[in-house]
This record gives sequence, structure tokens and C-alpha cells, in this order.
Amino acid sequence: MSSTRIESDAFGEIEVASDKYWGAQSQRSLGNFEIGDIKMPPSIVKSFGILKKAAAIVNEDLGALDPKIGAAIKEAATEVADGKLTDHFPLVIYQTGSGTQSNMNANEVISNRAIEILGGVKGSKKPVHPNDHVNMSQSSNDTFPTVMHIAAVTEISNGLLPNLRDLRDAFEKKSQEFSKIIKIGRTHLQDATPLTLGQEFSGYVQQLTFGIERVESTLPRLSLLAQGGTAVGTGLNTRKNFDVKVAEEVSKLTGLPFKTAPNKFEALAAHDAIVEASGALNTLAVSLFKIANDIRYLGSGPRCGYGELSLPENEPGSSIMPGKVNPTQNEALTMVCAQVMGNHTTITFSGASGQFELNVFKPVMAYNLLSSVRLLGDACRSFRIHCVEGIIANEDKIEKLLNESLMLVTALNPKIGYDNASKVAKNAHKKGLTLKESCLELNMLTEEEFHQWVRPENMLGPK
Amino acid sequence: MSSTRIESDAFGEIEVASDKYWGAQSQRSLGNFEIGDIKMPPSIVKSFGILKKAAAIVNEDLGALDPKIGAAIKEAATEVADGKLTDHFPLVIYQTGSGTQSNMNANEVISNRAIEILGGVKGSKKPVHPNDHVNMSQSSNDTFPTVMHIAAVTEISNGLLPNLRDLRDAFEKKSQEFSKIIKIGRTHLQDATPLTLGQEFSGYVQQLTFGIERVESTLPRLSLLAQGGTAVGTGLNTRKNFDVKVAEEVSKLTGLPFKTAPNKFEALAAHDAIVEASGALNTLAVSLFKIANDIRYLGSGPRCGYGELSLPENEPGSSIMPGKVNPTQNEALTMVCAQVMGNHTTITFSGASGQFELNVFKPVMAYNLLSSVRLLGDACRSFRIHCVEGIIANEDKIEKLLNESLMLVTALNPKIGYDNASKVAKNAHKKGLTLKESCLELNMLTEEEFHQWVRPENMLGPK
Amino acid sequence: MSSTRIESDAFGEIEVASDKYWGAQSQRSLGNFEIGDIKMPPSIVKSFGILKKAAAIVNEDLGALDPKIGAAIKEAATEVADGKLTDHFPLVIYQTGSGTQSNMNANEVISNRAIEILGGVKGSKKPVHPNDHVNMSQSSNDTFPTVMHIAAVTEISNGLLPNLRDLRDAFEKKSQEFSKIIKIGRTHLQDATPLTLGQEFSGYVQQLTFGIERVESTLPRLSLLAQGGTAVGTGLNTRKNFDVKVAEEVSKLTGLPFKTAPNKFEALAAHDAIVEASGALNTLAVSLFKIANDIRYLGSGPRCGYGELSLPENEPGSSIMPGKVNPTQNEALTMVCAQVMGNHTTITFSGASGQFELNVFKPVMAYNLLSSVRLLGDACRSFRIHCVEGIIANEDKIEKLLNESLMLVTALNPKIGYDNASKVAKNAHKKGLTLKESCLELNMLTEEEFHQWVRPENMLGPK
Amino acid sequence: MSSTRIESDAFGEIEVASDKYWGAQSQRSLGNFEIGDIKMPPSIVKSFGILKKAAAIVNEDLGALDPKIGAAIKEAATEVADGKLTDHFPLVIYQTGSGTQSNMNANEVISNRAIEILGGVKGSKKPVHPNDHVNMSQSSNDTFPTVMHIAAVTEISNGLLPNLRDLRDAFEKKSQEFSKIIKIGRTHLQDATPLTLGQEFSGYVQQLTFGIERVESTLPRLSLLAQGGTAVGTGLNTRKNFDVKVAEEVSKLTGLPFKTAPNKFEALAAHDAIVEASGALNTLAVSLFKIANDIRYLGSGPRCGYGELSLPENEPGSSIMPGKVNPTQNEALTMVCAQVMGNHTTITFSGASGQFELNVFKPVMAYNLLSSVRLLGDACRSFRIHCVEGIIANEDKIEKLLNESLMLVTALNPKIGYDNASKVAKNAHKKGLTLKESCLELNMLTEEEFHQWVRPENMLGPK
Repeated sequence: MSSTRIESDAFGEIEVASDKYWGAQSQRSLGNFEIGDIKMPPSIVKSFGILKKAAAIVNEDLGALDPKIGAAIKEAATEVADGKLTDHFPLVIYQTGSGTQSNMNANEVISNRAIEILGGVKGSKKPVHPNDHVNMSQSSNDTFPTVMHIAAVTEISNGLLPNLRDLRDAFEKKSQEFSKIIKIGRTHLQDATPLTLGQEFSGYVQQLTFGIERVESTLPRLSLLAQGGTAVGTGLNTRKNFDVKVAEEVSKLTGLPFKTAPNKFEALAAHDAIVEASGALNTLAVSLFKIANDIRYLGSGPRCGYGELSLPENEPGSSIMPGKVNPTQNEALTMVCAQVMGNHTTITFSGASGQFELNVFKPVMAYNLLSSVRLLGDACRSFRIHCVEGIIANEDKIEKLLNESLMLVTALNPKIGYDNASKVAKNAHKKGLTLKESCLELNMLTEEEFHQWVRPENMLGPK
Repeated sequence: MSSTRIESDAFGEIEVASDKYWGAQSQRSLGNFEIGDIKMPPSIVKSFGILKKAAAIVNEDLGALDPKIGAAIKEAATEVADGKLTDHFPLVIYQTGSGTQSNMNANEVISNRAIEILGGVKGSKKPVHPNDHVNMSQSSNDTFPTVMHIAAVTEISNGLLPNLRDLRDAFEKKSQEFSKIIKIGRTHLQDATPLTLGQEFSGYVQQLTFGIERVESTLPRLSLLAQGGTAVGTGLNTRKNFDVKVAEEVSKLTGLPFKTAPNKFEALAAHDAIVEASGALNTLAVSLFKIANDIRYLGSGPRCGYGELSLPENEPGSSIMPGKVNPTQNEALTMVCAQVMGNHTTITFSGASGQFELNVFKPVMAYNLLSSVRLLGDACRSFRIHCVEGIIANEDKIEKLLNESLMLVTALNPKIGYDNASKVAKNAHKKGLTLKESCLELNMLTEEEFHQWVRPENMLGPK
Repeated sequence: MSSTRIESDAFGEIEVASDKYWGAQSQRSLGNFEIGDIKMPPSIVKSFGILKKAAAIVNEDLGALDPKIGAAIKEAATEVADGKLTDHFPLVIYQTGSGTQSNMNANEVISNRAIEILGGVKGSKKPVHPNDHVNMSQSSNDTFPTVMHIAAVTEISNGLLPNLRDLRDAFEKKSQEFSKIIKIGRTHLQDATPLTLGQEFSGYVQQLTFGIERVESTLPRLSLLAQGGTAVGTGLNTRKNFDVKVAEEVSKLTGLPFKTAPNKFEALAAHDAIVEASGALNTLAVSLFKIANDIRYLGSGPRCGYGELSLPENEPGSSIMPGKVNPTQNEALTMVCAQVMGNHTTITFSGASGQFELNVFKPVMAYNLLSSVRLLGDACRSFRIHCVEGIIANEDKIEKLLNESLMLVTALNPKIGYDNASKVAKNAHKKGLTLKESCLELNMLTEEEFHQWVRPENMLGPK
Repeated sequence: MSSTRIESDAFGEIEVASDKYWGAQSQRSLGNFEIGDIKMPPSIVKSFGILKKAAAIVNEDLGALDPKIGAAIKEAATEVADGKLTDHFPLVIYQTGSGTQSNMNANEVISNRAIEILGGVKGSKKPVHPNDHVNMSQSSNDTFPTVMHIAAVTEISNGLLPNLRDLRDAFEKKSQEFSKIIKIGRTHLQDATPLTLGQEFSGYVQQLTFGIERVESTLPRLSLLAQGGTAVGTGLNTRKNFDVKVAEEVSKLTGLPFKTAPNKFEALAAHDAIVEASGALNTLAVSLFKIANDIRYLGSGPRCGYGELSLPENEPGSSIMPGKVNPTQNEALTMVCAQVMGNHTTITFSGASGQFELNVFKPVMAYNLLSSVRLLGDACRSFRIHCVEGIIANEDKIEKLLNESLMLVTALNPKIGYDNASKVAKNAHKKGLTLKESCLELNMLTEEEFHQWVRPENMLGPK
């Protein structure tokens, strides 16, 4: 901090690095909250830009804000929305539970940048005041939950959902590619009746299709904005329809259908919509964990595992063991799933801990939700590109296992009776024979009959 | 077990108490799983009755089941569905992870009861065989997830949701009753601008309204039945449309809109719909925790707490301290919420742990979900009857706090300026004065002006 | 309730079934808390018997309690401690958060039974008063946490730990039994360098040995008793040393080393020792989950899985597929583990939610901890008896996999160089050859050399 | 990346920025795992420096490593240990589950830096090879769990524990400072018998003292190092005592008592010690949550809350409401607690998901544990400095509440009897009188008697 300027707030003066736009309250927060090093997510910062711009537009419309000041605020806020000023948002997550200091960070950066645009002196608060102008008709208590929702809906809509749909489609393609490959089923990890590899993959497709529905079903409530509630939810110091108009402007700026929350008391004091959305991500993590786990087991081997699938080889395996391909994408994805489940616990506990007119776990809830959204989206994309699209079915191994299995004996029940079929199977199991060998040894049927009756392809659906 | 009969299965013979309908596999399970003492929930048992009856109807329709045997099965299954034979379902939760033994318990009880109806000998498996007839076209792997869903949807629809709606309505009534009572708001637990007690309660109403929507939004996926998938999801050994018809019959029997699952592989191997439903209950628990916590703090006292509300006195408080009323309903409700959150962790972990064609955490998932549904429904009813409906606002205390608070100074900002208003507030805080006393001491305005300008009733909404 | 008597409390009179010992406050609780159907665990009830007896002994010693009344209380309390009166404790978990009503339940049952012993009239409170005599020098606020600790330490010491040690010993025995069986190792689920099956099992032994240490390490803090703190921790209305003496008596009665808590404020307001103990059980659940999961995968098959182990067959598998043995004990155990993890979430959330001088989540914390203790103990015993002790190594399969694997090529690095070894392995992988076949095909070495150099038994430890 | 060099691995060549020390495998990982932006924690990177140095020392001692190469490795590794090369560790958490790529990152950076020291060409692998020399006798499978433990023990010992002890001491000091201030107790949030503010704070001291013990009690198992197990736990390719000697060197370098793990199979395949440590942090979070919550409620107000404490004012409260001090440090701390609880869920789930010879959730477990350690340490320090040390007791308010409360009536039980005392209390409650006023109105005793008998200072302990 070679060069500094003086900024001030109600607590007095404080030095700030000359090349930073933030002001006294942000600077003070840096000293008061030296807790970890995780900063407010960029999507929150950008959402502040969107919100402050929307508020300026509405305040101008309502005649409350001088158009010249409004223009400068809108220009500065656009830069924040575009991510150009993210370096000027240095505050960490573990701060005031209302996110007040990050709201002030936004107010300070935008006012100083707007002052600069208008040729003024940074830190002078003239002609653009962080509170009076940038925060006009607003309170941290309604802006922070508003940006939580803007960021969450934006990241889900533009980041997570497209990646989820791509992954689902990649599995759908594989399901069709594998539609003729008959394999042994496994229940309780034990050999069971057959299905196609395509059918098996169709289960994953269905899980993801439902997962997309689940995430989408949280958007209506997540798209409700707290803005307009101000300090306690009453809307004190706003004008009528400010709330509705801000939601409209945010919708225009983002291209996403936001609405004003029907009850602002709920919107400030509870963040159930965040908990709900996290619940959908938790369910999605459950689905992805199951899918990734199945695939790595089916790809286990190459010689001493299930070996039904070959997964793409993306990096050197062990320097000792040639041919060793590790299912590293599955590992990364399942680690992400475990993280999302933990984030859900944090969000649940935080969501339950609101008090009276305010929930003061806002930053930690926002961070954990946005982290889950980001990680799931990234991991789905990575898993699709580096794993799913390159999965190859080891048809020889699949067929070998199918033929070795004893459960095809089920097909003989109507021919030789359950008791005789049992004898065949137990004899095979005991002596290590194939089913056919056992049948022939026990003179249950001829080789021709065996081939006629024991047909896995007839065991794949209802009669 | 004074008197016994012999039952048998593939493992041989085993003694069963004469007065019990269950058979060999149930009896064997009793010996193999002496783990805890929590039995399969009655709603699961009843759902087995419904399902077995539906299957018998469809099997008859499809010409697969002898009508005489079918009639006896339907009669016996109806008794199970009506809860008349619940004592004959002794198995615990921690058993085979597919619930196979509880499915066999149902098959055995129904077959023995049907045999009895038809004048046969219990344990003879004639003329009604537990597997061949009662379990016809079924597998534990599809029946158990089916009864999980039937039980969950039934308990949610008939138990939880009505109680939730009643609680929401009780809060709505209180919100209207309290619509004129102006009180101090609290953010960060610190005195803030005012709102009405009715507005505060309207936040709770909104939380519950959303909570009802959240629970309802899980029903479409929870109403999909796995039945028809049999062992691995292919539907082997069923006839075409068996799945669709069973869902139709279950809908008729329950009056609830069940449908067959679009993909049976997903329906056996994953129980994401259970995880999703648990997520909605988790969000509901978060809401209820916040509400119950607020109310007990607002009712804290009688002399040394917030004291804004009086909660009904339902039982003696301390034998030492007269006048002590403990918020015991809030305590019970918040304990239930903590339980539901824990159940959600169990369900999440279990849901993620399916393997290949089967998830083998079915009983523990079913138990935890049904436990959450039951507890939330019961606790909402108890909380409504024994607490919410009897809440009284202590208007004197509320008014006293409102008048003592310093935040009404906000109303003077436009009259005497923010700086002078600050002086008034700080002087009052320092000397322990009321706002009016401080104003007058500092000669900021007259008593008349004070009463004209400082009006909490003008601070309750946008301009 | 054909025949009733009148009981009374500060709220007035109420009817109680004649054949029950409980009184007015218990009866009232039954009406006020119709929430679920899970009753206070028997170990809590028995611990109340122990505590009330200990308190009577100390009160007599200190000259505060009439010896004749004391004798009757001790006799009645002994019956409670012995589990003879458990049917007279009908209250559910979700009640007053301090457990007050269960403490009163104990006071009422013991006083009525003592009255009966002394020839008095039940409900008369004479000559033995539930509060004045049975609850002498006590408050629910210190008795309930005391019985939580007595029950937890007793159940852990006498139930869980012996079962854990037995399971550990069973694995130790298997580890030795399998010490000569060399098998393929698996990392990332991929074939790796070899180890013995005994070494693999020794990892489980170590996990359990540490698990036992972990559980034991919580006992010092769990053995501290809150008794003597009375209402808020000050010990008002007790005599000096009452706390120390009660702990001594409880130790005598249980044979376990209880001590009085060094700070009673902590002991009433926080239940961190319960959270800590649950944390140890959570870690244990993690260990057991891993072990049970490994074993069921190693036992997967019989033809199409890993197939290295055969697990005992305890009950019929599928009625369709002969030879199908399901790892049902592993399934029950892993479901228990998932339950314990969920219970831990409930306990964590509840533990964090104490307020001022009292934590009012006592019953739900006690229930969840005791449930985890019970389930883990039962499941360890069941898993040991019905699974571990009967595990058989499929040596042929193990050897076959070992020989088929390619990683033994590692042994050739010092002989033919890493590059040539790589060629051997890749050639084998590509053409489906064994290592030896590949070596010979590539003329890398003679058959004799191969057998001399490629010896898994030399790959099992440091040089 | 204006200037690049070529690095290579078994997959071929790849471009790396010239100014970076990392090699091909690190670079490849950057492309394969674009998942989130959280990098491997610096404490892990530093621990790799310590470990690689220790291994070089031992390898030299055992005669396996050329001293000249060893010297360069030690110099480079020291730079890593000192944090000078942290910028050269760009990999994210969600990568290979064994942390292989971060181990290779360390090998590559150290070999390239050592090559540079020896005047060679970066990327040439000569004369210092990343695998052959830096990774000598090691495998990712044992190095990564080793650095997890080194980092955890170091951060706990040098970061968390000192901060915890300081916080405990700060509370101890406050407890003594407040030892004479008698205040009303609160149970169920309702007025109860009195205690001193010092007694109340002594409960917090005890919670933290136990918390320190809990964390310390995990160190013995956390100080066991996996190093020496290599690929699957057997120690293949190490020399005898390599494991013991490495642990000794690490102890020397860190000044902390590390030991080699008694069973390497457990040490690679399970990370129960991480789960255990997280459990201790979870319990600590529970304690801190309770403490921080109590204090913010006791500081609620200034006029309309409990108001017994004044917390330091660190930053401007609302721009609207003068005198508003928000308990922001408590908010930051409780958010950290919620995060730690969520991290615990992630760690629990990950810990349970090991498979056969390896747990492949290593990075996510390490990150979450180290994050919890860091956040708790930082938040405890911040809470102590910015809150606890500056807490002031509002003695007037405390005394006023004490005098207004009705529970002091308890002191009159032995004088006028419980029934009359009840009348006094109920009369006071009904009419809003003080206890004394009620006593005098009912002619129960004289003013002199009242002052003689009703003395809170006599209600603070056993008789």
C-alpha cells in the first residue's frame, strides 16, 4: 500500500490504497474479519452491479434520483456487473451476517467509480454518495438476499442446467449405443437376471432428467427478490412499487424471470428458498454419486475387477504398473458430491438460525449454495468430456460374464421345474461348471434344448 | 411361544408360534437380525396390504391368478391394509437392505390368512402359496420401493399436509388478530425500525405456505411406482401393462394419483425421490425451527426476557418458581426439527449408496422418511393446538418497548437532520432517557412537535 | 382405562389408570405431546432408578431424608433400576426439552410404589411425596443430564464395547487365518501390487482397535455427572458434597467410575460430551461402513463379481435364482452406519442450540445417542456371528486373479528394465495374454526365469 | 503464457510456462480438472516440502540416494516447506482422489528447482528425476495421507490450539471480573434462580477447556504417518525402517511428535483419524455456537432486548439508527461454526467411502479439515480481540432485572411456606408488582424481613 487516500465513515477516517475504489467501511472490515481467505464469490459481486443499476434506473423513474448522478451510477454499476471491478471486492465470507459490509463495498466502489466518471475526487462522496445515492431506497437487509437470489438463479440457469442437460444427453447417447449389449444384472452385488447395458444407462438418464426437473422446480421461489423490504421488511423509505419495478429491471438486465417477493418479512428473516435449492442440489449429488460409483466399479480391473467398461485414459497411471487407468474423473465428481452434501448441512443449519426480522447467516449460505452450483456444473462438464463420452463397452468380457453366470437357469423353470433348475444351478456352483455343462451332466436336457431355451435376449422385458 | 407349528422355506423347517400368521422366512429373520427394536412402520405394513390386493386384482384380470385364490388373497390383504394384522409384522428395520424379508412377511401373512379363510392348514402353502400366488409377478426389489412410495404419499397427503395447512391457517388468523399491534423490529437482535406483530406473523404464514408448496412439489415423483420392474427393472416374469394396471388399482384403493414409473431401472436402483422428499421436509424443519424459536424468545420472561407474547400454560412449570411457564411445545417442535434434519442426513447417505441394479438401503430410507413425515405432522398439530392458537400479545409490554426504543428517531431525520437526530439518540442512550426526553433536553423540538412527527404507525410501509 | 384414580398437581386433578404408578404430570404430558410413538429408552428409565436410589442414600446420609421413607424409595427405585416398572414410563421423546416430565414420571412412579410398599394410598403423595422426597435436592435440570450420562456410559461400557472387541477379535482371527493367502491389491478400484488377505484384514483390525480407543476416550467426560447443579448450576437447595456423594453412589451401583462434573453450569447448559461421544460413534460408523462395503464387494458374485470371499448363507436368497447369497448382514450393518451418521447430525444441531443456563434438546440428544450405541453394538454382534466368523476365502479365485493380473510385471523392472517390462504388460493387455505368455512371446526371458523372478511372495513388504 | 518449454510424461509432450517449475503431469491435470477454483491448501504444499526433504535425508542415510542429488532436493524442498514456491502449485482440490497429481506437482517442482540449483535444464529430468529421486521409496498413496497428517497436526498445534487457549483465557479473565455480579438465571428462556455473571461465563471457560482437551485427544492418532506403505500398504520398494526414520525426520523438521503408523493398510485405505479430528472440531463448533449465541442475546438491545452485556462497537451500524451496534463478531463466528459442521458431513461421507486398499477422497477430506482448522482458529482470535476482551457488563440493567424478577420468592419458602410464597408471586405477576410490593400488600412480612430474607447472594451455591 505505497500510496493511500483518506476515506471516512461514522467511525472516523481510515487509509485506503489509492488504486482501490473501496471506501472506509470495506477497509475497516478487512481489519475486523481476518478469518480465512475465501472472498465473496464473483457472481455475488456481479449481481450487486446488476442490482445497483436496476435500483438507479427505478429511482430515476420515480423521480428520486438526479439523472446525472443516475447515469454515472449506472455506468459504474455496469462495470461491476461485467466483472471489471471484481478486484475491488476484497471482503471475506465470514463477516457481518447480513452481508452489510459487502453491500457497503458495492456502494463504495460504485460511488467512487461514479465520482471518477464525473470528474470528482474519490473518497469525497461528492457528487455521488455511497448511501444516499447508490444505496437509495435500499438496506443491506434487502439487497444482500436479493443478490443471493440473482446470483443463484443466474448461475443455475446459465451454468449448472446446461451442463446437466449435456451430461444427460451424453448418457442418453451411450444408452442407445449400448442398447443391444446384454449383460448380467447385479442386485445386492450378486449376479441376477440380465438386462442390456443400454437399459442400465437409461436409469442414469432418468436420474438426471429428474435431477434437472428438481433443480428447475426450485427456481420459482428462488426468483423472488427481497428488494423493497429495506430494514425489517416493511419497505420503510421506499416508494410504492419500487419493489416490483426493481424486479422488472433485474429481469430485463439478466434475461431471467425475477419477481418481487410476495412477503418481504419472510424474504429477509428466512432463506428457505436457499435451503430448498440446496436440497435439490443434494439430491442431484446423490444421483451423480451413484452413477459415478457404478461406472468406476463397472470399469474396475483391467483383469481383477468387473471390467465391463473401459474408461478413457486421461493421464499417466502409476509409474510402476503399466495399463493402470484410474477413474480419476469419477473420483473428482464423487468428491464434489461429498462437498455438496456438506454444503447442504451448512446451509440447513444456517437457514434454521434466523432470528426475528433477519437471518444473519446470509454470506455463508450464499457462498455454500453458489459453491455447490459451480462445482456440480464444472464436474458434470468435466465428467462428460473426459469420461462419459469416451466410455467403451468391453463386449467380450460382458458376454463372458453373462455366459458364466448361473442365473440364466431361471429360463428353465417352466421347462424342467424349479426344483430341477435348482439342482442344475447348485451342481454348477459346486463343481465350477457352466450351466450347460451342468445340465448335460445331469441329463436334464440336450444341448440343442439348452440353446433353444436359455436365451438372455428373451429375459429383457415383460411378456 | 407355548404352542408352535412348523413352517418351511428353502433352508428347511423352523418353528413358528401357532397364533402368528408369519412363516419361515420371517421367523428366520427374527433370529438373524437382532438389531435394535424398531419395527417396520405400520404405514409400510398397510401399504403392503394395498399393493398385494392390487396385484391380485390385476393378476386375476390378466388371467394369471385363479379367482378363488385371488378372492382369498384380496380379503386377507384388505385386513393387512386396514391394520388388523400389524401384530404379525415383527421384523425390524435393520435387515436385508432390499426389504426382502418384509415382503416375504407380507406374502407369508397373507397366504396363511388366505389359507385360513379357505379352510386350509397354515404353513401348508396350499392352496395359497406365498411366492407363487401372493407375490405373483412381483419381486421384493419392486414391491418394497412401491410400498415406500405408497406409504410416503399417503402419510404426506393424509397426515402431514392437513396438519401443515391447519398450522398455517392458525398463524394467518393470529396475523390478522395482531394486525394493529405495532412493535419494535429486531435485526441482528438489535432494536430496529417498527413493524406490526401481524406483519411479523405474516412472515411465518408465508414460510408455511411455501413449505406446503415444497412438500406438494415432491409428490409427482413420489407418486411413481416401481411395481412391474421385478428383479432388476426389466419386468421379467410380468405381463405387459401389469405395471400400469397395478398403479391404477393402487390409485383406486388409496384415492391418490399414483402412476407407474417411466423407468424401472431408476426406480429400483435409486431412491432419489425419497431423498428429494426428505429435502422438502428438511426445508420445512428449517422453517418451523425459525418460527418456534422466534416465538419462544418473544415469549421469554415473564420479567427478564422479551415478554412480548404470552404462550399458553399447559402444565406445571417449576415446583420452585411460581409463574414460570415453559415453552414446552416449542421445545418439542424444535427437537422434532433437529430429528428431521438428522433423518435427512441418513437418507442422503443411504440414497447415494445404491449399487448397480439395486439400492439396498431401502428399509432405513423408508423408516427415516416416514418418521420425519409423522413427527412433523404430529408436532405441527400439537404446536397449533397447545401453543399457537392460545398465543396472547402482551400489548402493554410491546408498547412500552416500542416507546423506549431509540430507533423512532429515524422519523426525525427529515425534520431536524440526520446529525441532530444522532445527537438526540446518543444523548438518550448515554443518559438513559426516552427519545422525547432527550429531544426536549436538547431543545430540538417541542413536545407537540415530537408527538406530531414521531409516529410509528407511519413507518410500516412504503410511502 | 376401565378403572381410574385421581391424581393431582398444581394444575388440578386428572384421572390416571388404576394399574399405573404414574401421576398427574405424566398423565398430562400424554395429552400434551401426542408426537410420534417413540418412548424414552429403557436405559434412561433404569438410570433414573439408579439415580433416585443414589440420591435417597445420600439424602439419608446427610440427614435430610427420613430413613423409613428413604428405605421405601430405595426399594421402589431398585425396581425401576431393574427394569421391572418400565411399563409405567409411557412418555415420548418429543416433550419438554429438559426432560422434566420424564423426571416427574420417575418421581411419581417411585413415590406411588413407595407409598404402596408403606401401605399408603397411591396418589395421596403421603407419606412419600414425588417432589419433596423422591426429587429431594434435585431438579429436572440436573437429573436428566445425569441419567443421560449414566445411561450412555453404561450402554457403551456393557453393550457396545464388548461387542466391538469381539468383532475386532474375530477379524484378528481371520487375519491370521488368511496370513498366507496372497491376493491382488486394488487402488482406485484398479489392479495394483499384491498383499495377503491377512494384511488386508489387518487394516480392519486396526480400524476397530482405533475405534475402541476413540469410544473409550470419550468416557472420561461422559462419566461426569451434572447432579448437584439443580436449577441453573449453582446447586441451590443442595447441601455441600451432595454432588460428590451422589456420583460415588452411582459408581457403586453401576460399577463404573462416575465423577461429579467440575462445572455444573456447563453440565446443564451444554451437552458437548454427548456430541463428542456421538462423534466417536460417527467415526466408528465410518470405519464399519468401509469394512462392510469391502467385504460385500469381495464377496460379490458368485460368477460375475470379485468373488474372493464366500460369506455365510443365512437365509434363502431369491426364489428365482438358486445359489444367490445376499450379503444381508453387511446391508443391515451399513444401514445402521447411515442411521448413526444421521443421529450425529441431530445431536450436533441439538447440542449447538442450548440457551443460557439450559440446553432444552436433552431428550432428543439422549435418544439419538443411545440409539446409535444400541444399534452399533447389536449390528457388530450380528455381523460377527452371522458373517465375519463364517467368511471363507475362495483361494482358487484369489490365485487365479493374482496370476492373471499384469502388475506382477513390477518384479521384472530390475531384470529386464522398466521399458521392457512396460512392453510385456502392454502386449499382454492388448492381446489378452498372461504375463508369462507375453514374456515368452516377446522372448524377454525363459519360463524358468519367469518363475524364478515373478514371485508375489516377495512383494509383500520392505526389503 | 508468452514463453513456454516442453515437459513430458508417459503420455507425451506438453507445453508449460517457462517461469513455472511444474511439469507435464501438473500441466495435464490443469486441463483435465477445470472444477472450481479452490487450490490445494498452502499447508499441504508446505508439508510436501517437509516430507520430500525428510525422505531425501533418509534415502541418503540408507545409501539409496546420491548425496549431491540429495543436497539439491533438500534445498529445493526447503523452499517448498518455507512457502516460497507455493505459486507453483496450481492444482485444484477436485482432482484424482489419491492426490496423485499434487504429489507429482511436488515431485516436478522440486526436481526442476533442484535441476536449476545444479545448473541443469528444467524439464530434462536430469540429473534430478521427479519419480526416481524426489519420489524415491514413495507412492502418492502414502505421501498424500502423510502430508494430510503433517498439515493437520501442524495447523492444529500452531494455529488452532493457541487461539483456543487465548480465547479460553480471555473468558476466564472475564469470569473473574464478573464474579460479583449477580444476575437472573434463565432456563427454557424463562426467568429462573440467580447466579453470578462470572458463574455463567465459567461455563464457557469449561466448554473451551474441554474443547481443547477434545482436540488434543485426536493428536495421537493424527500424528501417525502413512509414509512407508507405498502403493497398497505393504511397503514394497522401500527399505526396512524407512517408515520409522521418515517419521523421525518429519518430527525433527516440525518439532512435533510424529510416529510411523502401526498398520499401513489402515493408513492408506481409511482416514478415520481425519474423521475423528473433524468430530472434535464439530464438537468445538457446537460449543462456540452456544457461547456466541448466548452472548449476542445477552447483548441484545440496547433498549428492547436482554441488554445485560455491551459488546464492543467495531464498525458503523445502520446509517439510519444511531446507537445500533451489531454483534458482527458473533455472526462471523457462528457462520464459521455452521461451515465446520458442514465440512464434517463432507468428511464423514468421504471417510466412509474408501474402497479396498485406498480411500480416494483424500483431497476433499484434507481441504475440509484444514479449512475447519483455519476458520476456527481465525474466528476464535477475531472473536477474542474484537468482542470478548471488550465485553462490558451493564450492571444497572442486570440488577434491575434481578430485582424485578419473581423467582427470588424461592427464598421465602422456608419462611412463609410454599403456598404463601406462591400467592405472593402470582399476585405480583398479575398486578405487575415487585416481589416486595406484593409481600407488603399481602401483609406476608415486613419490609425489614423482606430485605433480610430475600438475598440473591445467598442463592448462589449449596448450603
